[in-house]
Amino acid sequence: MNVKQRICQRLESAERPILICHISPDGDALGAMLGLAIALHKLGKGADAVCQDPVPATYAFLPGADRVLARPGDGYDLVVSLDCSDLRRMGAPYQHLSAGEKSLPIVNIDHHVTNLNFGAINWVDTTAVATAEMVLELVEMMGVSPDVDLATCLLTGIVTDTRGFRTANTSAKVMAAVTRLMEAGANLARISEHVFSHRPLAAVRLWEQAFSETYLDGRILWSVITRGMRDRSNYEPDGDAGLVSFLSDVSEADIAVVFTEKDDGEIDVSMRANPGLDVSQVALSLGGGGHPQAAGCTLRMALQEAVNIVLSDLQAAWREQTGQ
Amino acid sequence: MNVKQRICQRLESAERPILICHISPDGDALGAMLGLAIALHKLGKGADAVCQDPVPATYAFLPGADRVLARPGDGYDLVVSLDCSDLRRMGAPYQHLSAGEKSLPIVNIDHHVTNLNFGAINWVDTTAVATAEMVLELVEMMGVSPDVDLATCLLTGIVTDTRGFRTANTSAKVMAAVTRLMEAGANLARISEHVFSHRPLAAVRLWEQAFSETYLDGRILWSVITRGMRDRSNYEPDGDAGLVSFLSDVSEADIAVVFTEKDDGEIDVSMRANPGLDVSQVALSLGGGGHPQAAGCTLRMALQEAVNIVLSDLQAAWREQTGQ
Repeated sequence: MNVKQRICQRLESAERPILICHISPDGDALGAMLGLAIALHKLGKGADAVCQDPVPATYAFLPGADRVLARPGDGYDLVVSLDCSDLRRMGAPYQHLSAGEKSLPIVNIDHHVTNLNFGAINWVDTTAVATAEMVLELVEMMGVSPDVDLATCLLTGIVTDTRGFRTANTSAKVMAAVTRLMEAGANLARISEHVFSHRPLAAVRLWEQAFSETYLDGRILWSVITRGMRDRSNYEPDGDAGLVSFLSDVSEADIAVVFTEKDDGEIDVSMRANPGLDVSQVALSLGGGGHPQAAGCTLRMALQEAVNIVLSDLQAAWREQTGQ
Repeated sequence: MNVKQRICQRLESAERPILICHISPDGDALGAMLGLAIALHKLGKGADAVCQDPVPATYAFLPGADRVLARPGDGYDLVVSLDCSDLRRMGAPYQHLSAGEKSLPIVNIDHHVTNLNFGAINWVDTTAVATAEMVLELVEMMGVSPDVDLATCLLTGIVTDTRGFRTANTSAKVMAAVTRLMEAGANLARISEHVFSHRPLAAVRLWEQAFSETYLDGRILWSVITRGMRDRSNYEPDGDAGLVSFLSDVSEADIAVVFTEKDDGEIDVSMRANPGLDVSQVALSLGGGGHPQAAGCTLRMALQEAVNIVLSDLQAAWREQTGQ
């Protein structure tokens, strides 16, 4: 019996599984978790979907988003971790489980190369574009045919993690899965609009300022977003409004990095690399994680110090990986 | 016999067809033309692919791009127009045909709502996302199985005209076609990188300046790119580097417009609308054309005058279409 069959068997024999996705959830964490929750409800299970942090406004359209719990309930008989590379990424919900529930087997479903295989059953498929793609396989194996809600959740996960089918791992097999999800009723244009097309005008004003602090250093393009810039542009969220993805499309750069000064003064470092390069190891060595092409970390130090350390590490990684 | 069967019959009985795509060619014009040329070559036809304007650097990767002719050869026995909404869009290549060739039947294959049905056989499918999608249907009907080159051309057309599968008409049927093209060897990530990810750093500098001249007028977001801005940012091409698509993603706007002052002083007007709105009629009334969600025109007048006229027309269209 392979790992997927073992997971299906566990899910089918559970009566009240708790599904937990990672803190600061993105479209794949939420989509995979909510998609699996819908499938388990269809099978008559009392499954709860739990996440430490609130569902971002971008993903509030996901079916079931309003039923995501911040704290676990009780009476669980199985723990399922979705899109988490380690135990810590499940955050408070796992910590808040009772001692008995903490001794339950953990089913670990993830596609991150940095996954630590912390579960009792670990299905870590680093060739999957999204954890949602893996959940679709499980759902189909369990004989659940996706309805429009389930398909919307899973397609959102795939759209998010492939940046709209742009990543190098988006294969014909992935597109066949996308076709099935659309045939089940998922509306790709609507999902893409939610995920990508909701940039407030304040973000344009923010980028205008960030562009004036954007520099090319060899083949690394980097930019800075300070608290002052966010204030002046009335941009409220604690992020870069997608700037790092935008900069990664600049032809002169192989790697893009954005340093965002958060409200609490920590520096959020977000990195992107062209196919063939890997920034996940630099992120991991600085206490973060991610994928070869998209990774990040959070540093508690002055902005300039963070810039110096990260650029120096990235230049070294670039030289090593390109042999230049 | 339906129109597609009639077109296949014409293509199969021709020995030396000339394929012409529209002036200022984009990825769909070139992809559809080059894809059909490859299919006809496989069937032993001496087909020529002709376009008035040079292949833009963005599309130089397309198989056969280096064999696109600027002027027709001779001895043709069929004219095939691809992605052209009227005779004028074929430009000089059609004008340069001999009198005898001009009396040949024209096969008109297009998906623009503004198509004038100027051919002897007109297949205008406004539900198709791209002319390349229509060509795939023809190719499959003629029993040609796409190889990697043919698939690359057609997938590029679909990727370009759906803006990377973002448009509302991107259906499960389209994704099934995409899956088949990828199974035939087309590399989606590579195509997307060519089409979307080759923005020079100068474009970032250009946008920085354009953002300072970006205004929200009701639900219409508009911006201006002057020759001076292009000079100061060392941005050489005569365009907006995709600014209008970017602005169309701003949440406060239903419509985005960019006015680009070209080297010859003409004003290029590029418009985008959210699903449910239609800017093609405004473009058409000003001598341009396009699709409901993406249209444009070129005006010979002062920049400020162009801004006044277009904004006034778009505000009227917005009020009429939203009932506000």
